[in-house]
Amino acid sequence: MADKAQIQEAIKTQGEVVRKLKSEKASKEQIDEEVAKLLQLKAQLGGDEGKHAFVLKTAKGTRDYNPKQMAIREKVFNIIISCFKRHGAETIDTPVFELKETLTGKYGEDSKLIYDLKDQGGELLSLRYDLTVPFARYLAMNKITNIKRYHIAKVYRRDNPAMTRGRYREFYQCDFDIAGQYDAMIPDAECLKIVYEILSELELGDFRIKVNDRRILDGMFAVCGVPDEKFRTICSTVDKLDKMAWEDVKKEMVNEKGLSEEIADRIGEYVSMQGGKDLAERLLQDPKLSQSKQACAGLTDMKQLFSYLELFQVTDKVVFDLSLARGLDYYTGVIYEAVLSQTVPAPVPTPTEQNGADEAGVSVGSVAGGGRYDGLVGMFDPKGRKVPCVGVSIGIERIFSIMEQKAELSSEKVRTTETQVLVASAQKNLLEERLKLTTELWNAGIKAEVLYKKNPKLLSQLQHCEETGIPLVAILGEQELKDGVVKLRNVASREEVDVPRADLVDEVKKRTL
Amino acid sequence: MADKAQIQEAIKTQGEVVRKLKSEKASKEQIDEEVAKLLQLKAQLGGDEGKHAFVLKTAKGTRDYNPKQMAIREKVFNIIISCFKRHGAETIDTPVFELKETLTGKYGEDSKLIYDLKDQGGELLSLRYDLTVPFARYLAMNKITNIKRYHIAKVYRRDNPAMTRGRYREFYQCDFDIAGQYDAMIPDAECLKIVYEILSELELGDFRIKVNDRRILDGMFAVCGVPDEKFRTICSTVDKLDKMAWEDVKKEMVNEKGLSEEIADRIGEYVSMQGGKDLAERLLQDPKLSQSKQACAGLTDMKQLFSYLELFQVTDKVVFDLSLARGLDYYTGVIYEAVLSQTVPAPVPTPTEQNGADEAGVSVGSVAGGGRYDGLVGMFDPKGRKVPCVGVSIGIERIFSIMEQKAELSSEKVRTTETQVLVASAQKNLLEERLKLTTELWNAGIKAEVLYKKNPKLLSQLQHCEETGIPLVAILGEQELKDGVVKLRNVASREEVDVPRADLVDEVKKRTL
Repeated sequence: MADKAQIQEAIKTQGEVVRKLKSEKASKEQIDEEVAKLLQLKAQLGGDEGKHAFVLKTAKGTRDYNPKQMAIREKVFNIIISCFKRHGAETIDTPVFELKETLTGKYGEDSKLIYDLKDQGGELLSLRYDLTVPFARYLAMNKITNIKRYHIAKVYRRDNPAMTRGRYREFYQCDFDIAGQYDAMIPDAECLKIVYEILSELELGDFRIKVNDRRILDGMFAVCGVPDEKFRTICSTVDKLDKMAWEDVKKEMVNEKGLSEEIADRIGEYVSMQGGKDLAERLLQDPKLSQSKQACAGLTDMKQLFSYLELFQVTDKVVFDLSLARGLDYYTGVIYEAVLSQTVPAPVPTPTEQNGADEAGVSVGSVAGGGRYDGLVGMFDPKGRKVPCVGVSIGIERIFSIMEQKAELSSEKVRTTETQVLVASAQKNLLEERLKLTTELWNAGIKAEVLYKKNPKLLSQLQHCEETGIPLVAILGEQELKDGVVKLRNVASREEVDVPRADLVDEVKKRTL
Repeated sequence: MADKAQIQEAIKTQGEVVRKLKSEKASKEQIDEEVAKLLQLKAQLGGDEGKHAFVLKTAKGTRDYNPKQMAIREKVFNIIISCFKRHGAETIDTPVFELKETLTGKYGEDSKLIYDLKDQGGELLSLRYDLTVPFARYLAMNKITNIKRYHIAKVYRRDNPAMTRGRYREFYQCDFDIAGQYDAMIPDAECLKIVYEILSELELGDFRIKVNDRRILDGMFAVCGVPDEKFRTICSTVDKLDKMAWEDVKKEMVNEKGLSEEIADRIGEYVSMQGGKDLAERLLQDPKLSQSKQACAGLTDMKQLFSYLELFQVTDKVVFDLSLARGLDYYTGVIYEAVLSQTVPAPVPTPTEQNGADEAGVSVGSVAGGGRYDGLVGMFDPKGRKVPCVGVSIGIERIFSIMEQKAELSSEKVRTTETQVLVASAQKNLLEERLKLTTELWNAGIKAEVLYKKNPKLLSQLQHCEETGIPLVAILGEQELKDGVVKLRNVASREEVDVPRADLVDEVKKRTL
């Protein structure tokens, strides 16, 4: 425990910070964060001073899902899981944390974003950063040489959150991977087919799937004259072409990465190329690029890939794009990324999120990505045995954001329960009868609710149905009990009909199919 | 980084530890753990010495779920979620970590088992220990005063793992809670109804649901003469009655907790009592216990609870048991716990897990538990506003363990995919035709697979079906292509029939309903 005087001193200093930010009209996010720190300090004091200073928030970059958001999440997951199952995938799960060393050396520069657990004695642990490295660890540990599996789970990155755009520190990944030694490009093509199916079924508007190959990129760098040791860093500069103009990318290559203008311009020519199978064929004839064995291998596979994509009927959305260069270290062959064409109606951006751009909408950017990583499992295998893998990850948080915004704009109400019928009464002292009837319905598998009040008003029972979208009310009264019937009311039409008690279950089923 | 010589020294010491344990024939678990530490040290050295010393394991107390386990997990979740939905529950989700102070002071002695995250700058965070405290935080933060929700997610406890009994450091909780100001005992009774339904539908054999009330326990302690400040600690001793004989519990009360023999014996009389509504009525007449206002309030509610349980048709499994005393600090009223009656066939226990007992099977203990916690939300509300809550948590890991053991013993094969048909060929050079047909099936919503080989043997295609339980094979050959048909083979009966290509989708649907 820190000394009380020390804490009081810290509170004073932190108070100044908050006042300063407020006077400078800093962003709400920034101020909130500093206020939270202040309250945390006050809470440490305890006693009267700390009593009402409890910080009521979720951790930075994380959020709760309320029932409405969960209903949307379930809908999206169902579409995705159905697709994965349609393609014959099994599913696995791994722990949320791994031994720290399992993650070490797999993510390049991004490793600094990994959450570590506190050393409380025992093993050193880290929260998983993606699902791919745990998958490779799982394969090596269980000596599995072929599997087609999906894995949907949360991953953790200490990144700068931009929550209105669906960028969080805790977020879902939906991964589908095929591991095994197979004939070239068949599993790769299936991954792209899956992205195509999922994005189509989610009805997110038009999209494009960009495809490239690590070997083509590397071959291109080689023939342009980039020194070997600069491949990776130039690759990450090329990766910025989706956000920056060529002029700026070139400047970074020349001024920061030390390439000559000439080499940069040669790269510039290649990375402006887009096409399909035809482009792969043309580049195989390219006098420079065809000098690189690597590039030729990549281009030959690209041709093959497109011929399978034609059979899968997805070439209308797939583009061979030489500017695509995904960041992660572990890719070895084909890489791809799906982007939505339209922008999404923007929520008001916070000042820290504004990029000085005058965009009318938010470009959500990549909503799926993946590629081939033939070396990763070998990094875990004691004997270095390789298991070729290719996979795709669906960027589900961005998709949630879009779906939530669509739901907000739509007039249709999102139901958060599936209740078919509310058991109600207009008269007093019928709680026992309501509970008895509810039990009958539950025992018959009907989704039923009853208000937890001894004598609720009929109006409040009907209001509960209106608010939560329950379509039917089963109303009990002295007369109905005497007659052995239940009054079944349709909430929307207000139409009522007496149903013999013995027929109620069937009647409810019939009306709520 | 530690100095190389230091690491080498540590390796030497750790090597001795492992040798010693092996010579003492320590448990496999213990040895594995020390070997893992040794390998971790070796890995730190890097270079040749560390090269093959990679530790390939999951963190202590955690496990992967393989596809078979996932299939069982899905089945169990479906039963539980259906039940929650039948009772009109919504669902929410909260982040896996919370601000550390959100969890502080909620779990009593168990707080030492909380996983903290490393301080990497910013907020101090901890992994959630249960779903109840995050739920209370969620209610207070969003000013929600009534909700019926379920939440299924993993929680984290740095406990001593006993994995063969389903005790892990990362494990699922399935929580159902009702928050809101309602008439007494109606939501409480529904929680018990839910436990009853779930345990019945999971077919885990006979079970009992023990019920008690914090107020009855406290009243009982008071009239027996336990000093106020010893209520909680005596409560946790009483809690051991399901594992220890009364004589030992009494010893702990007298020798460790400092009660007089006389007081302990008075407690002993009460905690041996079990019954139903009748017992509650009898105790309301008990000359001593009826002196306690608290106890009377608890007993009156208990009577009421049993009358609702009768209407819910679940009294055959519910027992009012005065020895039930759940550990957690936050309970304020009714508490309950479900136990399975039978023991489960035991896996061979590791030496560290043996309690010197000669049990033939593993008693899995509590599989569900919960109670009323009317004060917890108020701890988070800045103005201390209370939201009464009652809930139940299903101990799903123990249930998984039992279901997995049942699956092991059963001859029925667990399918891990849902594939309806494999598209195959007996002849060479038909990959393109296979892919084309598979695309037709996928596009029609059929779950279909195709082997990723250019020219797979028919036998290996049929074997894949046998192994994974795919019921149908659609076989293409030159003749079939010419005739515009597909040979549809039933894998189990080996019966084959030619189906016109246009009818294939309907035929597959019909045969795999």
